[in-house]
Amino acid sequence: MNTRKKIETTATTTPPLQNKDVSSAARDEVLKRVEKDYEEFKETHTFKFPTWLYGPPKGKLIKIEVEDCPRFGDTAYVEFDSARTAFLSIDMQVDFCGPKGYVDVMGYDLGLTSAPIKPIMHVLDAIRKGTDVKVIHTREGHLPDLSDAPYNKILRSKIIGDGVGIGDVPQGGMGRLLVRGEKNWDIIDDLYPVPGEYVVDKAGKGGFGQSNLPLILKNLGITHLIITGITTDVCVHTIMREANDNGYWCTLLKDGTGATDYGNYQAAIKQIKMQGGVFGWVSDSGKLVKGLKSAFNSETPSK
Amino acid sequence: MNTRKKIETTATTTPPLQNKDVSSAARDEVLKRVEKDYEEFKETHTFKFPTWLYGPPKGKLIKIEVEDCPRFGDTAYVEFDSARTAFLSIDMQVDFCGPKGYVDVMGYDLGLTSAPIKPIMHVLDAIRKGTDVKVIHTREGHLPDLSDAPYNKILRSKIIGDGVGIGDVPQGGMGRLLVRGEKNWDIIDDLYPVPGEYVVDKAGKGGFGQSNLPLILKNLGITHLIITGITTDVCVHTIMREANDNGYWCTLLKDGTGATDYGNYQAAIKQIKMQGGVFGWVSDSGKLVKGLKSAFNSETPSK
Repeated sequence: MNTRKKIETTATTTPPLQNKDVSSAARDEVLKRVEKDYEEFKETHTFKFPTWLYGPPKGKLIKIEVEDCPRFGDTAYVEFDSARTAFLSIDMQVDFCGPKGYVDVMGYDLGLTSAPIKPIMHVLDAIRKGTDVKVIHTREGHLPDLSDAPYNKILRSKIIGDGVGIGDVPQGGMGRLLVRGEKNWDIIDDLYPVPGEYVVDKAGKGGFGQSNLPLILKNLGITHLIITGITTDVCVHTIMREANDNGYWCTLLKDGTGATDYGNYQAAIKQIKMQGGVFGWVSDSGKLVKGLKSAFNSETPSK
Repeated sequence: MNTRKKIETTATTTPPLQNKDVSSAARDEVLKRVEKDYEEFKETHTFKFPTWLYGPPKGKLIKIEVEDCPRFGDTAYVEFDSARTAFLSIDMQVDFCGPKGYVDVMGYDLGLTSAPIKPIMHVLDAIRKGTDVKVIHTREGHLPDLSDAPYNKILRSKIIGDGVGIGDVPQGGMGRLLVRGEKNWDIIDDLYPVPGEYVVDKAGKGGFGQSNLPLILKNLGITHLIITGITTDVCVHTIMREANDNGYWCTLLKDGTGATDYGNYQAAIKQIKMQGGVFGWVSDSGKLVKGLKSAFNSETPSK
């Protein structure tokens, strides 16, 4: 009791710290750093891997060209450390790009959501040839008891599906739509994970609120993300927004993603590039593969 | 030690519970419920307030018309309990719609981001006349020491702002861009909160990862959100996505929101309506005010 009283007395006689007083030194340091990096960017057009922040690279430094960097024409680059980079393949499940899956039942054109399959295969092929880039596959799906599916989500899916929604089996279908463990819920054969890759299950469109993704990224020491998958304007954009808010450097490969509507796909790409890259950067599979091959010298695996 | 050993023995002799075994009863209950509500929806075209889930309404039931509900033409309704509904006014700060603020410095048309001011005023006016709808204002901004601003966010803002980014004071400006406590960071006078309303500060585009918003919504017992603010494709969409993933019933008022690019605004509206309302519903300020007045009988405040 005595101790407590003393603390209270101290608190009332010592004025509380003013944000203004303590914050200026830290702020000035940040602004000095950003000024320096801004000047360097004007010379190099490159968002360099910030070793002052993360330390020296653990893997190889890779530089890829990104689109439309504001105020500097359309040639700019993002540089990343291969060992601190995760390649995300988002929701490449039968339910989103295969026959009798969720998207098919809703009546959308599977041509649009299956378009990114080949570009993603191309990238996976390059990554799997001895690079240390981490590969993370995500799957959207709900527990078999549906307890992690918001009720309004199930109801809306039932309406758009003309009576066949999440948890139902469509006519001629492989299993219950968007339910974990069903064949239609799993990743398509062409892009199936190989040993050493990671699979993250999520109950929402995003990955930071309804899955272990943020923890896994931290545990793996990831700083940069290369993003692909479907659908661009829904799950892909939601994860990219969350990751960007959390400080990850996010680059979307625009041929490695697709939407249920082509206009929405195009808008989703454009939305990323607003405000100087409000959610990150846009590149494509060819540019990434070129960067990987150049860094890993094609036939010379690093380990 | 003995106890521990016994537990281990039990574990190995009792087979683990199979999801399939325990989940079917719960799943069948959900599917039975959704089937019933789907049939009712076909009759009423209304997403009713689910009393079976939340219990009886605490306030008044309000029904507002929403756009383009799939498979039922363009007339559908969302019903909500006034006392469990929060009206969100997102980031209506000088920095996003006023002169010499963040968006102005980036060179965007303030006419687009200030367009929603009057519709939001109109709704606030109706809500403040004795309804029990909760009002929550959000502000995007960073701590004065910038410690909660991802470095790549500051750098990108510096580049798009031609050397003037987050934490800098633009020529003729009111203070440091997007920094808490500065005049440009605060909510514009026309929409300033009144006593009894809530203000939530957030360090990101979204509100669920970088602010107290999810906790506040839970503490207030909110089930439904009416969403307005700026910008549509960035902060508004991110919060709507997060809230939807968390099971909130989200309705965006399309004249109560604006973007830095009109095409992106239109696309953001369309993206919500895909897949049966993948992030919720779209309505407008007139329809909400009509619903409020009808429920609260205009001149007869409830309390």
